[in-house]
Amino acid sequence: MTELDRYLADLGRAARQAARAMAKASTQAKNAALLAAAEALRRHRDEVLAANAADLAAAREAGLSPALIDRLTLSEKGLETMAEGVAQVAALPDPVGEIDEVKRRPSGIQVGKMRVPLGVIGIIYEARPNVTADAAALCLKSGNAAILRGGKEALQSNQAIERCIRAGLEAAGLPLAALQLVQTTDRALVSRLVASPELVDVIVPRGGKGLIEAVMKDARVPVIKHLDGNCHVYVHAAADPAKVLPIVENAKTHRYGVCNAAETLLIDEAVAERHLPEIGRMFAGHGVQMRCCPRTLTLLQRHGLPTELLKAATEDDWREEYLAPIIAIRLVADLDEAIEHIERYGSKHTDAILTEDYGAAMRFLREVDSASVMVNASTRFADGFEYGLGAEIGISTDKIHARGPVGLEGLTSQKWIVLGQGEIRR
Amino acid sequence: MTELDRYLADLGRAARQAARAMAKASTQAKNAALLAAAEALRRHRDEVLAANAADLAAAREAGLSPALIDRLTLSEKGLETMAEGVAQVAALPDPVGEIDEVKRRPSGIQVGKMRVPLGVIGIIYEARPNVTADAAALCLKSGNAAILRGGKEALQSNQAIERCIRAGLEAAGLPLAALQLVQTTDRALVSRLVASPELVDVIVPRGGKGLIEAVMKDARVPVIKHLDGNCHVYVHAAADPAKVLPIVENAKTHRYGVCNAAETLLIDEAVAERHLPEIGRMFAGHGVQMRCCPRTLTLLQRHGLPTELLKAATEDDWREEYLAPIIAIRLVADLDEAIEHIERYGSKHTDAILTEDYGAAMRFLREVDSASVMVNASTRFADGFEYGLGAEIGISTDKIHARGPVGLEGLTSQKWIVLGQGEIRR
Repeated sequence: MTELDRYLADLGRAARQAARAMAKASTQAKNAALLAAAEALRRHRDEVLAANAADLAAAREAGLSPALIDRLTLSEKGLETMAEGVAQVAALPDPVGEIDEVKRRPSGIQVGKMRVPLGVIGIIYEARPNVTADAAALCLKSGNAAILRGGKEALQSNQAIERCIRAGLEAAGLPLAALQLVQTTDRALVSRLVASPELVDVIVPRGGKGLIEAVMKDARVPVIKHLDGNCHVYVHAAADPAKVLPIVENAKTHRYGVCNAAETLLIDEAVAERHLPEIGRMFAGHGVQMRCCPRTLTLLQRHGLPTELLKAATEDDWREEYLAPIIAIRLVADLDEAIEHIERYGSKHTDAILTEDYGAAMRFLREVDSASVMVNASTRFADGFEYGLGAEIGISTDKIHARGPVGLEGLTSQKWIVLGQGEIRR
Repeated sequence: MTELDRYLADLGRAARQAARAMAKASTQAKNAALLAAAEALRRHRDEVLAANAADLAAAREAGLSPALIDRLTLSEKGLETMAEGVAQVAALPDPVGEIDEVKRRPSGIQVGKMRVPLGVIGIIYEARPNVTADAAALCLKSGNAAILRGGKEALQSNQAIERCIRAGLEAAGLPLAALQLVQTTDRALVSRLVASPELVDVIVPRGGKGLIEAVMKDARVPVIKHLDGNCHVYVHAAADPAKVLPIVENAKTHRYGVCNAAETLLIDEAVAERHLPEIGRMFAGHGVQMRCCPRTLTLLQRHGLPTELLKAATEDDWREEYLAPIIAIRLVADLDEAIEHIERYGSKHTDAILTEDYGAAMRFLREVDSASVMVNASTRFADGFEYGLGAEIGISTDKIHARGPVGLEGLTSQKWIVLGQGEIRR
């Protein structure tokens, strides 16, 4: 047994034991732990910020990119937001123990479902210290134990945050091992952890595509993951003209770097002449580059849109998640062609139709196989807070277990309960 | 590309295309297909039985064990049961398209969930032709396409059944590729199939532990699986004496070879003297061998139970799924020790407590981490029909997605739907 093996086995054993205690823990105890953790984050503000400053100094020395430095940075305000986020999770309803769908069967037994924690959850993420508090709060509130493995550049920040959350667990009489931060930066640990179903019940990777793919390569444990967000807005022939521009603008330009931003605009050819010029001018006003199908290109050129923002789309553009002020635009013949396009090029994340036609709306809702399917609303709504989950651990593009924004419920499962009065099976 | 690669790619492509059509198919069309399939099974009875006779002749020649021959055998009555089973699935409510939990959010959007098929389901099973019809019916009714790979000894029987079900699909105007039986007996195909998330969305292995473990070894696709059924009946100190004997008898002796049969009896030491002698006599009457903890052994010997049926339990006995007229018996100090025993040795399948004590019942329900947890009922109730699912594709011992008996709903997932009136995110 190598040292890493022993470390991993110890980590897993402690997590399993803590998970049993967390599953039994009262809502009151879990909430007390989270509120005390939020308080500790505020009280130990200077220590957390000092740890973050040390991480940042090392990161600058190592020449990390400004984007990575930005994600790693914890401001005083960011720390307060973190503490507030942890306290907000305490205020969410506890899903554990919920009993649902209890029915009496002809045999006399009553059968229903009870919501229970998954057990031990492994979170693999990049050097973003805010994920540490956020993920820990959701795992603990849902009655699970968490093993967190954040990017190595954030280790000191994460350790400081871990101490605060453990102070909360201690104050509430809950086991400290319910939150374990992986202390080694050895990457082999991640490969081993995600291949150890005896140690961990589910893995939630949070980060870019590279991280997700690395986790998937070795995973033997179920993974709740998020791949691409190639979201579509489809302007149907029967779209309400008053809704088109605001939704298209919001879906693309509200924020560029987010997974629920629109990356492709599809528009029925019958209404292209009506909507595209003003859409084009709106995008030009935001400096959004348009990658166009041939007919869109001709149309927008004819309407005098700035040529530096117009480009012919290639096949790759239909698949691309730009996360940038760029949008692909394509004319389609009808609903069938729009659904076909989304089926072929989409990433099963979030897609919206704009229409006042009932039949088209119903067909789009049913036939588009994405985690979130919308009628007359911006794709930007695909979000745990907007959906009323209170918080989200991530957005799943899987079909098994949890689809779309995953909140506390996605960190639980339902077991069957049978309430009998002495029944036997005949 | 090898021939197997090409075969697998063709199979997968056809399945994906069929899955899209099945997801859109009306309930009426799916039911018509199932009823026509049931009719075809009856009409082509002689051909199916002849194909089965050919499989049986080859199996006997190859010297297959009587147990395998028994599973492979289709009687005239068995075939009628099969046809009736397919027709019964037509009568079940269609889960696809169900919209649930629609709530209006402060932004103005309405958010809810719509139940949708998983897509392409791969079923890997042994040489049991009845699984072919059964699994196909559940996959099709839930709007999925199915790729079935049954044990090679049943290939001709399965092909005959496949023809009948495809006749049903054809009669209803649904794509034949919604049901594809793997025609090659090359075992490499299974390894490849379960490692191809682009071809198949979920794998359901049905069979013994060897088959499940073989599938798990290579799986890259989510698996709904069933491992051991080491079920416990725990007689608590406050058990109603009138309920103890009937439930213990039913849980162990109703059927021995099933996964929801009790394999271990736990009994509070305070009531051992009261219950064990009559339980022992009952088991002796059924010829059930008792593997006892030291105190149970002494007690039962003292009460003159036949020595040939009494044996000291070893550590292995607590883990064993006998599937036979054998039961392990252990005295425990109290509820905590019982839960601890189940946590350590159980298989998270089905466990029951017998008690009239409210607090003990509630703690057992919450703290025992098994797919089915019961109070005052026989473990034999852990079954899709008994739970009201109408039918089951299997019993899952996983925690993700589906736990316990998996019916039509377990072959679907829920996507988010957003019904807007032009809302944008601020």
